[in-house]
Amino acid sequence: MLLIKAGGGRAINLTGLAADLASLTEPFVLLHGANAKRDDLAARLGIEVKRLVSVSGVASVESDDDLIDLMMMSYAGLQNKRIVELLQIRGVNAVGLCGLDGGLVRGRRNQGIRVRRGEKTLIVRDRSGKGEAVNGSLLRLLIDNGYAPVVTVPILDETNRAVNTENDDLLPLFQGEIGAETVVLLLEEKGFLRDGSDPGSFVPQMNRDDLEQWEKTATGRIKRKLRGIQKLLEAGVPRVIIADGRVDHPLAEALAGQGTVIQ
Amino acid sequence: MLLIKAGGGRAINLTGLAADLASLTEPFVLLHGANAKRDDLAARLGIEVKRLVSVSGVASVESDDDLIDLMMMSYAGLQNKRIVELLQIRGVNAVGLCGLDGGLVRGRRNQGIRVRRGEKTLIVRDRSGKGEAVNGSLLRLLIDNGYAPVVTVPILDETNRAVNTENDDLLPLFQGEIGAETVVLLLEEKGFLRDGSDPGSFVPQMNRDDLEQWEKTATGRIKRKLRGIQKLLEAGVPRVIIADGRVDHPLAEALAGQGTVIQ
Repeated sequence: MLLIKAGGGRAINLTGLAADLASLTEPFVLLHGANAKRDDLAARLGIEVKRLVSVSGVASVESDDDLIDLMMMSYAGLQNKRIVELLQIRGVNAVGLCGLDGGLVRGRRNQGIRVRRGEKTLIVRDRSGKGEAVNGSLLRLLIDNGYAPVVTVPILDETNRAVNTENDDLLPLFQGEIGAETVVLLLEEKGFLRDGSDPGSFVPQMNRDDLEQWEKTATGRIKRKLRGIQKLLEAGVPRVIIADGRVDHPLAEALAGQGTVIQ
Repeated sequence: MLLIKAGGGRAINLTGLAADLASLTEPFVLLHGANAKRDDLAARLGIEVKRLVSVSGVASVESDDDLIDLMMMSYAGLQNKRIVELLQIRGVNAVGLCGLDGGLVRGRRNQGIRVRRGEKTLIVRDRSGKGEAVNGSLLRLLIDNGYAPVVTVPILDETNRAVNTENDDLLPLFQGEIGAETVVLLLEEKGFLRDGSDPGSFVPQMNRDDLEQWEKTATGRIKRKLRGIQKLLEAGVPRVIIADGRVDHPLAEALAGQGTVIQ
């Protein structure tokens, strides 16, 4: 079993990924983003995608009702169904789902994000949340019957309404249900960069000790990434590969050891 | 088992429909349109939804690649996931699918539509098609495990690419797989009107003989509708109800006999 996360950046080679997935001999679950499609659509619709930065420095998108509509159109609609089509063309019987479908991902709406606005600290409560449980029985039902789940946001909150969440945060929940031997994260970078802005800081290999050490001193986005990988290892993944989603065969190259291998 | 088709008009009461579906004691499959959302989105994006009228007088939408994107956003994305949310809020474990997902609806791309352009007759070949087979095993897998399928276009063509089709034409294919006792069609009209423009021509009841008689003399859209109902009866539905989707409880009122009852 493989768990793959494809970032939603413009340069991710979804056609190459679909070809790689079609040549796998084992089952997989694909989680995907669609931020480039979301931002394109927002720009064309004249909707401003508002960014929030919490007082602790975590950046996110302000998920109001318009943004949830936008997520449904771009993530659960366009990106999800075009990926399903790419897979169907290659003979993979993909089923596209968002976290709402069959209660696939249930969670809790955020109480509010503390943000600075000029001199003041405000609490912004939007339609974002955190996943808490993945419906493993639905995943197994599909996989056992030859279907390949292709999954994206939004997810359900505690009142069964749609909330936005970070795909990365869902990975450990999926892993807990499917027990993949390898988790592959496909990004618009060569792999893990110790300094996000410097391609020269690419790390070919990491072990648990490196991860723990580096997480202590890292900040911002890199700290968050390292914490995410730690959570995946805690969820029992033997191997995590962070690899370049822009190449001709993103998944095949990742599995051949290109990228950052963590075990 | 119930098969319900909800039109995609602006005035269809989806919240009321979700409430009615939540109080059903039998399983159901819901097929839905989203033409109002598609047209709104097209207008906001500045995409022209081109209409085609065949030489035989059948009107359709020209389904180019932009239109398929638009369908994925509005039908398979926004409308499908908002309906799933309305059902999840009410405790129905809905799974939203389009015809691509799990090869739910496979068909054939149209060879071309003959249209008049001024003095000339042209063949326009777009990305539209006709459904030929519904994946009944996927529907049964979901229904038998407590999930409620909520289905919309696009569907797969013979090369497994996305094509647009008429939801109405899919109903007999779904009926062939699930064997519903009743098929309910929810429209923005009181029921079946013998003269589409005259609400006074509402028909409360029809039998097979009426249907056959009327179909011979009808033209255009009404002929097409009558033909659609005939095909449903041929697919073995004991009862078809055409009812008003704009009322407080569209499905409950339909099942109570409001609308046009055909048996």
